[in-house]
Amino acid sequence: MKKLFLTVFVSVTLISCSNEQASIEEGSCFSNGTSTYKWTMVTTWPKNFPGLGLAPENFSKYVNEMTCGRMKIKVYGAGEFVPAMGVFDAVSQGNVQLGHGASYYWTGKIKSSQFFTAVPFGLTAQEMNGWLHYGGGLELWQEAYEPFNLIPLAGGNTGVQMAGWFKKEINSLDDLKGLKMRIPGLAGEIFTRAGAETVTLPGNEIFLSLQQGVVDAAEWVGPYNDLTFGFHQVADYYYYPGWHEPGSTLEIIINKEAYDSLPEDLQAVIKYAARASNQEMLDEYTARNNKALNELIEKHNIQLKKIPDKVLVELKRITDEVMEDFIADDEMAQKVYKSYTEFKEQVVNYHRISEKAYIDTRELD
Amino acid sequence: MKKLFLTVFVSVTLISCSNEQASIEEGSCFSNGTSTYKWTMVTTWPKNFPGLGLAPENFSKYVNEMTCGRMKIKVYGAGEFVPAMGVFDAVSQGNVQLGHGASYYWTGKIKSSQFFTAVPFGLTAQEMNGWLHYGGGLELWQEAYEPFNLIPLAGGNTGVQMAGWFKKEINSLDDLKGLKMRIPGLAGEIFTRAGAETVTLPGNEIFLSLQQGVVDAAEWVGPYNDLTFGFHQVADYYYYPGWHEPGSTLEIIINKEAYDSLPEDLQAVIKYAARASNQEMLDEYTARNNKALNELIEKHNIQLKKIPDKVLVELKRITDEVMEDFIADDEMAQKVYKSYTEFKEQVVNYHRISEKAYIDTRELD
Repeated sequence: MKKLFLTVFVSVTLISCSNEQASIEEGSCFSNGTSTYKWTMVTTWPKNFPGLGLAPENFSKYVNEMTCGRMKIKVYGAGEFVPAMGVFDAVSQGNVQLGHGASYYWTGKIKSSQFFTAVPFGLTAQEMNGWLHYGGGLELWQEAYEPFNLIPLAGGNTGVQMAGWFKKEINSLDDLKGLKMRIPGLAGEIFTRAGAETVTLPGNEIFLSLQQGVVDAAEWVGPYNDLTFGFHQVADYYYYPGWHEPGSTLEIIINKEAYDSLPEDLQAVIKYAARASNQEMLDEYTARNNKALNELIEKHNIQLKKIPDKVLVELKRITDEVMEDFIADDEMAQKVYKSYTEFKEQVVNYHRISEKAYIDTRELD
Repeated sequence: MKKLFLTVFVSVTLISCSNEQASIEEGSCFSNGTSTYKWTMVTTWPKNFPGLGLAPENFSKYVNEMTCGRMKIKVYGAGEFVPAMGVFDAVSQGNVQLGHGASYYWTGKIKSSQFFTAVPFGLTAQEMNGWLHYGGGLELWQEAYEPFNLIPLAGGNTGVQMAGWFKKEINSLDDLKGLKMRIPGLAGEIFTRAGAETVTLPGNEIFLSLQQGVVDAAEWVGPYNDLTFGFHQVADYYYYPGWHEPGSTLEIIINKEAYDSLPEDLQAVIKYAARASNQEMLDEYTARNNKALNELIEKHNIQLKKIPDKVLVELKRITDEVMEDFIADDEMAQKVYKSYTEFKEQVVNYHRISEKAYIDTRELD
């Protein structure tokens, strides 16, 4: 396994220069400026796709700048090197060193991976970052991925997503019965229990499926991303809020042996470049969704609609049932869900008098 | 000016090693691993104070790790090297290279600096980061600080703060009349217009002032910080929401000449370490406020109260008047406020159907 990624290193003869590190107090961690690392990052997104696809490019840029090119990361879009759904295996097996995607794509391999992206009616972006970095979430994520030779880091967040595109209105739970919808993961299971027929499709197949009537509805991300795919051309109703993905964290995955082979300074560069790109993506979505939504409404005449509260209440009830079944036979999933829900309880309690109370106050006349 | 900070560099003889950079494609940006930089950061916070004081320590740690000790930043608490309110001048004059504080402390020097921390009824943490990094906010901040030889970067965020500690209940705007309160900046001006007598005091003087009756009320940050200062011992009522500081950004300021003297890789390290520490602080607050609030309620029997909506509506009305006067005679403040309010309008519009709609949904039964 190791052999594979070693072949893509550019190994340069170490310069023998006896007092080179004279001024470096922790000389053992320093890569001494003479070896370069050329790494490959495969992603589950179309190359340079807004938000999702820009995060790996940002990450690569930060690493390059901070190391003065000692470490270079070449980013591939989905299908350019491996298919979107082959990212996990490619990094796990050491064919490449890095991947960028969403952890819940790997639920078939690691059940608990669902919780590191998003949970229906769960944590927002700010809350996810709190849980991951100060609530034990990241440690659990790393524990869950360890058997696969992978180190995960948070590498972006979309914020609250949209509920999706529908060809007909949703006025009651009955309107979901028989509805053919592209909605993956737990949310798909919830919609299935509500009577819908759900499918999982990669992002770039959604448009055609909606157009050809293979599906009647589809969720993707939010206005900034959805506008790019042109869903407004094939569905009239754009529903909110994104009850099913209230702050999806994206992931950077690192092959553990590749990571261990790095000098400590480059390990730190990867860690903090990830943290910076994690925030950068959310900033981008926060700044750009509104303009895209306005364009969808004003230029493309889509109808913006809220899922009725009574439907949301039902979806919430079904979510509780689905979650119970989901974790039933998986010890790690139980452990992660326990950590997640405990954090959620306390953070929601505080946000009721802070974030929520403030946002409500802002609306007062 | 340059001389002053050059004296604290540890200049090490550059090793002559002809092919040392053979493998570095952009050799011009590389600091070649032989020069070390020992920098000093002064802060407006007590050393290692939760959240606020930990952010500069995190920033220093990230830089040290990513450079393998080639760059070391020693952090001083308020008063250790210069007083809290002397941070701006110390960095501006080049006595030290770095500072950590809150931009609105410098409103007396730069009016527009108010907008880079917080505005009453303004942007939340997520929205501030969106404005700063994708809405032109940071460019304006750097423009505003340029005449002072300073480069500012976002270096932390508290999230929505609390409205403060009060010795008596606030049931109407009349209850603010004659109230002696520690509340600085624009919020202080708003309370003054509402009839209060406001004062600005450094954090570490608030406790004694409350205890001795110099003030009847005081705002600081939120439960995680306020518990540390022990305000619950001298005031009974803890009010929310933090209408006046809905997502305060803290700042890292860098002496421009010191920054320009760095090789490009270390400049990048500073930039992305700041970005990482900016998110880290918010994560810390998000994870730790609730526990502190519970302790205040359960162990210390404080009374948690919401400012009545009718009072908030009045404060909002006064805020609009104050803002108009505040920017009236300052072109840069007008320019920044225009950018801020334009961003606010669009982001609030989108967050009404995303963050807010979702948080409301989560509360449905």
